[in-house]
Amino acid sequence: MASRPQLRQLGLSTGKKARLHRILFQHGVGNGTAMFLPYDQGLEHGPRDFFANPAAGDPAYIVKLALRGGFNGIAVQVGLAEKFYWDYAGEVPLVLKLNGRTEIPAADNPLSPLNADVADAVRLGADAVGYTMYVGSPAQEADFAQFRQVREDAHRYGLPLIVWAYPRGSAVDAKGGKDSFYAVDYAARTATELGADIVKVNFPHPELRKGARAEYDADISPAQAIDAVVRSAARTYVLVSGGEKAGDAAMLDKARMAMDAGALGLIFGRNVWQRPWDEALALVDQLKVILAKYPAP
Amino acid sequence: MASRPQLRQLGLSTGKKARLHRILFQHGVGNGTAMFLPYDQGLEHGPRDFFANPAAGDPAYIVKLALRGGFNGIAVQVGLAEKFYWDYAGEVPLVLKLNGRTEIPAADNPLSPLNADVADAVRLGADAVGYTMYVGSPAQEADFAQFRQVREDAHRYGLPLIVWAYPRGSAVDAKGGKDSFYAVDYAARTATELGADIVKVNFPHPELRKGARAEYDADISPAQAIDAVVRSAARTYVLVSGGEKAGDAAMLDKARMAMDAGALGLIFGRNVWQRPWDEALALVDQLKVILAKYPAP
Amino acid sequence: MASRPQLRQLGLSTGKKARLHRILFQHGVGNGTAMFLPYDQGLEHGPRDFFANPAAGDPAYIVKLALRGGFNGIAVQVGLAEKFYWDYAGEVPLVLKLNGRTEIPAADNPLSPLNADVADAVRLGADAVGYTMYVGSPAQEADFAQFRQVREDAHRYGLPLIVWAYPRGSAVDAKGGKDSFYAVDYAARTATELGADIVKVNFPHPELRKGARAEYDADISPAQAIDAVVRSAARTYVLVSGGEKAGDAAMLDKARMAMDAGALGLIFGRNVWQRPWDEALALVDQLKVILAKYPAP
Amino acid sequence: MASRPQLRQLGLSTGKKARLHRILFQHGVGNGTAMFLPYDQGLEHGPRDFFANPAAGDPAYIVKLALRGGFNGIAVQVGLAEKFYWDYAGEVPLVLKLNGRTEIPAADNPLSPLNADVADAVRLGADAVGYTMYVGSPAQEADFAQFRQVREDAHRYGLPLIVWAYPRGSAVDAKGGKDSFYAVDYAARTATELGADIVKVNFPHPELRKGARAEYDADISPAQAIDAVVRSAARTYVLVSGGEKAGDAAMLDKARMAMDAGALGLIFGRNVWQRPWDEALALVDQLKVILAKYPAP
Amino acid sequence: MASRPQLRQLGLSTGKKARLHRILFQHGVGNGTAMFLPYDQGLEHGPRDFFANPAAGDPAYIVKLALRGGFNGIAVQVGLAEKFYWDYAGEVPLVLKLNGRTEIPAADNPLSPLNADVADAVRLGADAVGYTMYVGSPAQEADFAQFRQVREDAHRYGLPLIVWAYPRGSAVDAKGGKDSFYAVDYAARTATELGADIVKVNFPHPELRKGARAEYDADISPAQAIDAVVRSAARTYVLVSGGEKAGDAAMLDKARMAMDAGALGLIFGRNVWQRPWDEALALVDQLKVILAKYPAP
Repeated sequence: MASRPQLRQLGLSTGKKARLHRILFQHGVGNGTAMFLPYDQGLEHGPRDFFANPAAGDPAYIVKLALRGGFNGIAVQVGLAEKFYWDYAGEVPLVLKLNGRTEIPAADNPLSPLNADVADAVRLGADAVGYTMYVGSPAQEADFAQFRQVREDAHRYGLPLIVWAYPRGSAVDAKGGKDSFYAVDYAARTATELGADIVKVNFPHPELRKGARAEYDADISPAQAIDAVVRSAARTYVLVSGGEKAGDAAMLDKARMAMDAGALGLIFGRNVWQRPWDEALALVDQLKVILAKYPAP
Repeated sequence: MASRPQLRQLGLSTGKKARLHRILFQHGVGNGTAMFLPYDQGLEHGPRDFFANPAAGDPAYIVKLALRGGFNGIAVQVGLAEKFYWDYAGEVPLVLKLNGRTEIPAADNPLSPLNADVADAVRLGADAVGYTMYVGSPAQEADFAQFRQVREDAHRYGLPLIVWAYPRGSAVDAKGGKDSFYAVDYAARTATELGADIVKVNFPHPELRKGARAEYDADISPAQAIDAVVRSAARTYVLVSGGEKAGDAAMLDKARMAMDAGALGLIFGRNVWQRPWDEALALVDQLKVILAKYPAP
Repeated sequence: MASRPQLRQLGLSTGKKARLHRILFQHGVGNGTAMFLPYDQGLEHGPRDFFANPAAGDPAYIVKLALRGGFNGIAVQVGLAEKFYWDYAGEVPLVLKLNGRTEIPAADNPLSPLNADVADAVRLGADAVGYTMYVGSPAQEADFAQFRQVREDAHRYGLPLIVWAYPRGSAVDAKGGKDSFYAVDYAARTATELGADIVKVNFPHPELRKGARAEYDADISPAQAIDAVVRSAARTYVLVSGGEKAGDAAMLDKARMAMDAGALGLIFGRNVWQRPWDEALALVDQLKVILAKYPAP
Repeated sequence: MASRPQLRQLGLSTGKKARLHRILFQHGVGNGTAMFLPYDQGLEHGPRDFFANPAAGDPAYIVKLALRGGFNGIAVQVGLAEKFYWDYAGEVPLVLKLNGRTEIPAADNPLSPLNADVADAVRLGADAVGYTMYVGSPAQEADFAQFRQVREDAHRYGLPLIVWAYPRGSAVDAKGGKDSFYAVDYAARTATELGADIVKVNFPHPELRKGARAEYDADISPAQAIDAVVRSAARTYVLVSGGEKAGDAAMLDKARMAMDAGALGLIFGRNVWQRPWDEALALVDQLKVILAKYPAP
Repeated sequence: MASRPQLRQLGLSTGKKARLHRILFQHGVGNGTAMFLPYDQGLEHGPRDFFANPAAGDPAYIVKLALRGGFNGIAVQVGLAEKFYWDYAGEVPLVLKLNGRTEIPAADNPLSPLNADVADAVRLGADAVGYTMYVGSPAQEADFAQFRQVREDAHRYGLPLIVWAYPRGSAVDAKGGKDSFYAVDYAARTATELGADIVKVNFPHPELRKGARAEYDADISPAQAIDAVVRSAARTYVLVSGGEKAGDAAMLDKARMAMDAGALGLIFGRNVWQRPWDEALALVDQLKVILAKYPAP
């Protein structure tokens, strides 16, 4: 089991350390863990994600939910940040999600184009920026080039950089798929080698290994898998994402295993806001009970 | 039924608010609604669109029509703005349409290239800029990148940004087509997430759902469809376009349903200028009677 | 029959108006008409175009011909402008042709790359710049993007912008071809919408309409066709090109019909310099007799 | 047998000479030879390279190994440099590896995208930068263009530029493969012609010549092959890489032949850190004994 | 027979004239003719070109040969210029070859990427720059765009620009090939239209005309062919290249015909340095005897 590194061990610049400190110790549980509310599914999947709970289609509802639920931050695209963050600016940290795409066109060579830059984030008072990297995509060259600019800008302005490290593409599919241990492990490492401060990964599924490389064709437990992923991320904080809506027990299990492995925290969207208001807050409360058990070392 | 948000609720910068106020309250009906006259079909479709009413091929005729009809603005490409807006500069607001293409080459991966930038709009005294986004096109990455620059420039200069949100591409065709509720709804959401101030959509046709995703395979009325689209646009004003020339009753019905749903107004081109001068003005008068019933809240 | 607009009606900036005035009233016939000598065929077609009259392969011969024939300008690529315009700099206006290509590689997606920019034209004392736009090419997006930069630079420096509007590509071929009324009409409109000051078109052939759109499948005369093209060009001056070498009577007929329709003038290259010196000047004299009958209004 | 050129014979700028002097004479054996520890395999191959010795997955372990082993430098990607070099900054030279890719997507047209620039290297106190060039790749044009920018920046900042010259692509495979004498020889020459200060090559295998050009279809010994490669590199220092993990005797043989041929030194990664700590240091000691026999002339 | 133009007739800027004067009248035969030594074959063909005379693989040998042979200049890539020109800087003019490629990947759409820019040439004290243009390549658009930047930079810094005008591509192969009169003639014209100061061509082979255009399907002599090429180059000085190694008599014949036609001189590489030192100098002496007979007019 890896232990979570301290902020002072990460080689961070002053601006990044200041903002991460604010996010991790002045919001949420306040003990150095994190729970983020992502809300860019209206772009990524379209309004259909709001049909289960139509109120969630209104960004004003979501900002209020983030505030009331005591999240460490809300992640949205620039259009929503401009129109809706104003209402509660400063009351909950903003993570400006810089890139994003619709799911409409075929994604054989996926690349998530930039819709905003780090300067937009600074202008809007964001405390961090988010970037989706499709690790393994045939468009890797363009993705890395785009990311490099974001990394340099985030360094210049002192904004922490959260990478949504998503394995994608036919080469990934052929070796166990995007949720396989192989894919998630490699994605986490890629993010840290290229300069992420925080990496968001899906919880790895070690049973997915059809076609996997020999090295990854071994029986390990989910706990061992997330532990290895956190170690591969080496001094890059790890957030485990919720993915599609699932049952409460499964969610809480994932959360506990991730925190045991040394993760920083959670980033749960649809699993939160597709539930009715009260149910969402109830789940959040349970998650916060878990996070409270993992204070910063 | 959604209600139209107030200008002060949109998180607008001073320059954008000033210009939108001028467009919405000092022109047209003057009650915060809008009716625009688009005139870029000579580029998009070629001169054939003028054969029904040859006088309309002369941009000078169109500018006069916009003025006499009391439109809130006229939308043209830079070449016509430079040669014809001078005559009546300041008397009717100018929306500089920044991108556009001819229909000649195949449009498998449609992208509407920039023919002018926001600085051109400022130089010409325009009060807003227009941008066509082909939501769902395989060229989405280039489209979003191009749009980002336009959004940033519009922010810098304080010009309101109107997005022509047009679903396009084989993936759209396979799920109900460009006028399906699915496609129009997703396009409206995309525009607001990426930073449009106003979005122009076609009136959605909920009966078009062959191949649609399960979530969109439901019986709803046109009124329900436009209502959902306006809600998806969340704090981005909605303009309903006229599309190809149709009968008066159909036009007026569309207009009423859109305004009931909380739309900002209408953008009718061929339905206006392909009619003879007097008939065009008569239709415009009827539309203004409708708009007058929906003052800003 | 359209009448030619006055210089003061075009919304021109001071610099463009000054230079156009110089070209139109201080050179050639001097009555506001124009006759240009294009000489970029050595690049576009190679030296074979000079085999009919080898002397014409020497640019020094051509500059002298332009001077002696009393042309309103000579259009060449930057290499020839640098090496040969010096001799007679200021004695005949220079139109710097900014883009051009060889005919060697297949032209399925034609785009004419820039070989010089507007700043080169300013440096060389040119009075106008020329740009070839392949209207209808699958490379339309790149073409429009490239043109936009040229248009902006021409605006910044106050140089009139002449667009060689050439319909091209398989979609054009399938609807009557590059000389059809449909194609020439659309090309002229495209140039004016995108910001040309002057557009060069081939004389339209209304009999070419195999596969044409229904709207263009009508019996009209060549005179009606050129009249419609000039109207579509709306406040963009029209130059009719000579194309491949043809007989004198045909040339003079074209010239008269174009001027009757409101064209600005002519741009004849191979029809002039592929003839021996004396024959070339004789044809030019006949063309000037025609132009003299169409003074500026 | 070529002799290794002196630093003063290379036409180096002051900054490059200063940093190379520091690397070659103030670290490692200190006699002008070099032994580098490359550690970007976590990106290039993924975490699987660490399975043989899990401790090696932690960059902190590697930096310590470089220090304790007395290497002349450690080569890592920017993310690891930012998070882990801080601990021992200045104690062992840093080579910032500027480009890199994952092995996941197919590499038919390989290009290694830039993940950092020379300015990042300066900011981090690096003493050199590294660049992977895929000589022979169909993406050669983009590779050379990218390299040119790196070379110019390295010149501007005075940082020595180490080129990982890797033959790649189907045309290489068809002529003997990436380790053939033909391929390695051409790659070394390409690096020197384009401006490398140091070139890293795989040890050439002269027996690989199936499909080779006639000129290269000759029986020569490995010693002759590496000698020719060093001569082709003409005043660009040569580092021989270890490649995949192999036996000690083979490693030491390679090292001796390379140094005999006039190479600068060695760059061994997996052959070092995939062994347990003590075994790794034992191998390093043996290599240093060899290097000690080849002081700068 | 064309006569060679004087330096003062070329419309050159002061800087270009100064440097060309230095090259043409202060080096080589000193009578306004030129003989250049190109040495970028190590990149273009790889080290195999040195197998005939291994000493020639060492750039130091070549620089000495250029000096001893009394060449008007040596043309190398930036890497060799940095490492080897220093020794004799100023003693023989340097032509920095700006672009180049390896022959390894297939060249269906050849483009020679830039490996250095004109500023590098200025920094290294070069007196001219060289650029390879693949006339007729499907990559023509990118080639012309790249060349434009080089031309503008060469103008800004006042460096003469030598174009290696190489016909390439399947369309060239289908009309007689890269050495046909058609191809060489068109290539020479393209270089002059686009702004070359000097153009390097292969000696045209008028017998190669299988598939040639009708205009080029005629019986002419080699002397007539080179004469036509020099005329097509109109005020752009012509250098005839040696190509692959051939016999002395053939070389001298080519040289005489070229000079008779008005060429500036010769650019012979492999024909010189693939011979042993003494034989190379003997051939050079014979070539200089020829050049001495063609002083500047």
